Amino acid sequence: MTKVAIIGASGYSGEELVRLLLSHPHAELVAVTSRQQAGQTVAQVFPKFASHPRARALRFVEPNAEVLAKQAEVVFLALPHGVAAEFAVPLLAGGARVIDLSADFRLKSAAIYQEFYAHDHPAPELLAKSVYGLPEVHRAAIQGATLIASPGCYPTSILLPTLPLLRAGLIKPQGIIADSMSGVSGAGRKAELDYLFVECNESVRPYGVPKHRHLSEIEEQLALAAGGPVTIQFTPHLIPVNRGILTTLYLAPAKHFATADEAAALGAQIAACYAAAYANEPFVRVLEGKALPDTKNVVGTNVLELAWRLDARTGRLIVMSAEDNIVKGASGQAVQSFNIMCGYPETAGLL
Amino acid sequence: MTKVAIIGASGYSGEELVRLLLSHPHAELVAVTSRQQAGQTVAQVFPKFASHPRARALRFVEPNAEVLAKQAEVVFLALPHGVAAEFAVPLLAGGARVIDLSADFRLKSAAIYQEFYAHDHPAPELLAKSVYGLPEVHRAAIQGATLIASPGCYPTSILLPTLPLLRAGLIKPQGIIADSMSGVSGAGRKAELDYLFVECNESVRPYGVPKHRHLSEIEEQLALAAGGPVTIQFTPHLIPVNRGILTTLYLAPAKHFATADEAAALGAQIAACYAAAYANEPFVRVLEGKALPDTKNVVGTNVLELAWRLDARTGRLIVMSAEDNIVKGASGQAVQSFNIMCGYPETAGLL
Amino acid sequence: MTKVAIIGASGYSGEELVRLLLSHPHAELVAVTSRQQAGQTVAQVFPKFASHPRARALRFVEPNAEVLAKQAEVVFLALPHGVAAEFAVPLLAGGARVIDLSADFRLKSAAIYQEFYAHDHPAPELLAKSVYGLPEVHRAAIQGATLIASPGCYPTSILLPTLPLLRAGLIKPQGIIADSMSGVSGAGRKAELDYLFVECNESVRPYGVPKHRHLSEIEEQLALAAGGPVTIQFTPHLIPVNRGILTTLYLAPAKHFATADEAAALGAQIAACYAAAYANEPFVRVLEGKALPDTKNVVGTNVLELAWRLDARTGRLIVMSAEDNIVKGASGQAVQSFNIMCGYPETAGLL
Amino acid sequence: MTKVAIIGASGYSGEELVRLLLSHPHAELVAVTSRQQAGQTVAQVFPKFASHPRARALRFVEPNAEVLAKQAEVVFLALPHGVAAEFAVPLLAGGARVIDLSADFRLKSAAIYQEFYAHDHPAPELLAKSVYGLPEVHRAAIQGATLIASPGCYPTSILLPTLPLLRAGLIKPQGIIADSMSGVSGAGRKAELDYLFVECNESVRPYGVPKHRHLSEIEEQLALAAGGPVTIQFTPHLIPVNRGILTTLYLAPAKHFATADEAAALGAQIAACYAAAYANEPFVRVLEGKALPDTKNVVGTNVLELAWRLDARTGRLIVMSAEDNIVKGASGQAVQSFNIMCGYPETAGLL
Repeated sequence: MTKVAIIGASGYSGEELVRLLLSHPHAELVAVTSRQQAGQTVAQVFPKFASHPRARALRFVEPNAEVLAKQAEVVFLALPHGVAAEFAVPLLAGGARVIDLSADFRLKSAAIYQEFYAHDHPAPELLAKSVYGLPEVHRAAIQGATLIASPGCYPTSILLPTLPLLRAGLIKPQGIIADSMSGVSGAGRKAELDYLFVECNESVRPYGVPKHRHLSEIEEQLALAAGGPVTIQFTPHLIPVNRGILTTLYLAPAKHFATADEAAALGAQIAACYAAAYANEPFVRVLEGKALPDTKNVVGTNVLELAWRLDARTGRLIVMSAEDNIVKGASGQAVQSFNIMCGYPETAGLL
Repeated sequence: MTKVAIIGASGYSGEELVRLLLSHPHAELVAVTSRQQAGQTVAQVFPKFASHPRARALRFVEPNAEVLAKQAEVVFLALPHGVAAEFAVPLLAGGARVIDLSADFRLKSAAIYQEFYAHDHPAPELLAKSVYGLPEVHRAAIQGATLIASPGCYPTSILLPTLPLLRAGLIKPQGIIADSMSGVSGAGRKAELDYLFVECNESVRPYGVPKHRHLSEIEEQLALAAGGPVTIQFTPHLIPVNRGILTTLYLAPAKHFATADEAAALGAQIAACYAAAYANEPFVRVLEGKALPDTKNVVGTNVLELAWRLDARTGRLIVMSAEDNIVKGASGQAVQSFNIMCGYPETAGLL
Repeated sequence: MTKVAIIGASGYSGEELVRLLLSHPHAELVAVTSRQQAGQTVAQVFPKFASHPRARALRFVEPNAEVLAKQAEVVFLALPHGVAAEFAVPLLAGGARVIDLSADFRLKSAAIYQEFYAHDHPAPELLAKSVYGLPEVHRAAIQGATLIASPGCYPTSILLPTLPLLRAGLIKPQGIIADSMSGVSGAGRKAELDYLFVECNESVRPYGVPKHRHLSEIEEQLALAAGGPVTIQFTPHLIPVNRGILTTLYLAPAKHFATADEAAALGAQIAACYAAAYANEPFVRVLEGKALPDTKNVVGTNVLELAWRLDARTGRLIVMSAEDNIVKGASGQAVQSFNIMCGYPETAGLL
Repeated sequence: MTKVAIIGASGYSGEELVRLLLSHPHAELVAVTSRQQAGQTVAQVFPKFASHPRARALRFVEPNAEVLAKQAEVVFLALPHGVAAEFAVPLLAGGARVIDLSADFRLKSAAIYQEFYAHDHPAPELLAKSVYGLPEVHRAAIQGATLIASPGCYPTSILLPTLPLLRAGLIKPQGIIADSMSGVSGAGRKAELDYLFVECNESVRPYGVPKHRHLSEIEEQLALAAGGPVTIQFTPHLIPVNRGILTTLYLAPAKHFATADEAAALGAQIAACYAAAYANEPFVRVLEGKALPDTKNVVGTNVLELAWRLDARTGRLIVMSAEDNIVKGASGQAVQSFNIMCGYPETAGLL
């Protein structure tokens, strides 16, 4: 058993971490913090967990990094970007390992952070130390890490379908387009007019066009796989569901195909590439036959599912992925890293 | 006043036609047909129109083209493709003018119809005669038409943002990508498991990838504007709203731009192009400032709204449009053509 | 044409007033106020009205009662309770007539106001002067009124089905139970966590149990009809729709019925009572046959629809009503009163 | 480990049974049947379970009671009423124990079955043998049962809040009113127009008024507790959520209360009654303080939560309950009975 704590546990990602860690076979949840909820039990703040004895016993406290570093071996940060770094520094100094769900440690470059987040990085010295917590890609580095930067929800939905193809040289690194639709929980539990029920229901809208913050980490990870700079087009849309991201990717195969035979040959390579990457991965599902991704098949799970189609009319490869933005896109993936980091079975608490 | 009839009035487009024509200042709704609803009043089938005296008096009848051709001057067809053509032939022979909301007369080529719809065209001799009822583009031809093929919902959302740019030579005709999200009414009022509330709610999914039937009419219209063949990429998605289509278009400017000055110059050309095309159009709204399209701002109206952004990082032009798939995407646009055809103010009954 | 203004036009009721008054054949919208939106055009704040030239021209201003009393003949107040009264006093003093959508002038008793709203009434001298703006009940008084207190959404859904039966002595005044479900727009456009999309979607919950503020006006109006005090049971629930209230009423017939013949006789009396009350009312629809109310049939309209059933097993009368909480339950009803007050056809701008 | 099978596993209750039994620590799912899905794997029919190896291996078969009685020790029936009984007879004859989720064996009286279901009971000889599977009430009988009639979703939401009060004599048995709202999954996975997304979204409507079939089992169970016949008023409503039932009950305390002291005394008795009934029940949660039930806090769990309020103004007791209609209202409760029947911990596979 590993003692764990969650800082900032009152948002949607924090709540999902609470759910996953309360029932995790190898985690003991010793502390949860929230400035607004301090003093309340977990069961009072989240009635849906009230059947769990620990939820009735454990009370939210004010966050104190020094104290938490002594109480917990691993601390999850479910905080806004900028704030997370302030806690990471003393936690690491106090000997805790940190899994950060914010964007603070996802980039290697403080300059790019500054460009996309419009303020100086609060702890640039930690950037080199942090590991990008995408287990299917950086599993080995996660094992030894003390600071995990757990990926964003959009980046996960884009990187898992793209990276194997890019590493295998099957697609061109330039010209990638990612068109995504996200449920409203992605905006966080914030009292803002834009996210009221009446403003989101019976509505679909793009936002953050054309330069969303998540681009920075997506492009950095794509560049690592491509071996050179990558610039992509990314358009997020808000749709009226609680959970789920559906991403449709428009990719250019490295090799031109025009005949049915060429398409079949290329298709075989793509299938083989995905099989090599994901056939043994418990949390990535490559759909077969006529099946296409549907968020309702992955919501509540740590699975990302994907399907691909070659379009002989346009010469493009279309890849579509679906995930739960709060599970595989946030808290579930963080627990997956936790399992790897601590030497537990990777699926512990996640099936 | 013009006497009008609707064949196939029990689906979502038919219902919206009933709504628009019941309150139209220059239309007298003399007949509505539906095999299943024959004998019922309009008010019984659509309780929401029961306040309208005509809805309480008018009864659905079995469709009979010969009779309808005598009763009505203009007949709207809200029927499945293939079926519409069977009615159009005798209606035209009987002297009625026809506005068809199906796909039957949208293409000029019977061969392309056969390719995309998988059966021979039922009345190929009428293809040359029909006018594609996109008023902002084919207004003059609509005025004299006896057979209007009213555009599909997805095509409208793609063509209106794209055609002016293509005609002006501001974008390359090749490489166009259209990513669309549609409400469930687009699937029609059909008792199929896929469209049950529980199957659509909390779900988002692509479908018809990569070769949706609507591609044929989109590409034919784009080719007319471009002066040569155009092949596009189109991915529709189903999202849990009743009404609305949001389309995001990825376009390649004809002229490369890299500096801020070049972007500003190109932006000015695009703005001028859209202003020339749409500043005086009552049903196309080009958004200004930071505003982006949102289906909730157009649902229930005949307006398509659009916004565009140049992305200096990728060199692309992103255009986003929103419309009500059943109004501007179907029945409202059909009434707009009716107004033009009959010499009424184009906005009659549509504001 | 009557010059009208709206104070507090940026909430959901205010927005609906803007919509109705922009297209009203006898109203000229001369001013709209909102502290937050001052300086913006109506089209900027509500893009969905942007097709209307007046929406592009008219700008929100800071509210100033003295100025507005000179500009407008009738002023609509779409303000929180307590605030509305502060504006009503100077508006009336300045010669304007006032239609208040808040609860401030709905009660005759300042003491009951104090009991239910927990503060002293800000203008008790006006209570005797105000008219409860339920046109189907107080039409004559509305004609001559200078201050209309437009009814609440829940009260409308309860009073219209109940009052005719009570006045006719067909039901007992005691023991009435009203169980209501409301869409989220009823909570107003307020940035509160409880009304976020994620908190309301896939949720249904009661609230304000057992003593909701609307009880006071419901009971006062029922007492007027019953000729003596009435106490009712009322439970509101929040459901994930934008618009609509469905109320189910449990009523005790004054006369016991047990046999089929007695039920038929009582049924005939109820049918006759409702026919006498509503057969000629344009905005109340008594359903026939097997039809039951459904909010989707009235949303966007000023109609309340109702159906009733006698239950021989329990001896009760069940009456169910559906309305759009923002139209018949608020702004549409206010415009209906406006029409009566100014001598226009009662349905002007409402069909 | 107990070998289990599910007959009729392709509907919503069947799907939930599959989910619960695939991950149940003491159940081995040996067969699932469905006429339409025969030949397909569980993973193909329900992609969301595809991560489970058993779901990829197990194929749907045609239902054959004789064969299943040999393969499985316990067989769950998730079939329409009338059909379930046809399978129960040969399954029991073949030595299997049966847990039936339909209404076929919930009543003791074949005459009442005939009255409410409009056809003769297909196996009246089994009615005396069957046990009503409400564990909190009939736990002892469930232990030894060979045929369990698992309760309906509405009945569960009404009986659990009511039975303890009735047995304790705290409420009058007559005059009970139950007003319920259910998610659309309650209508089953049936291709009917009424349950299409567009017909249910942005809609709320009553149905089955005033004599819903579920009344029969509710009244029979209430009569057992009251020691005499009970007739109740029950109104179900359909609301646009996938899962969840919220029931509001209007009850008459046996003892009149008027003063604050009397209310406090009665309140203490009610609190004690519920505590005695449910303090140690893992799946019933009596809310404290200001909390009111919300379906979003129980969806996905086997918990029913309830809260109560005394209304001194009307002299009534209001009790509100929330449950997941497919879990505690169907499949979860069936698994709870399975656990009791087989001697496993009652919460096995349900936390």
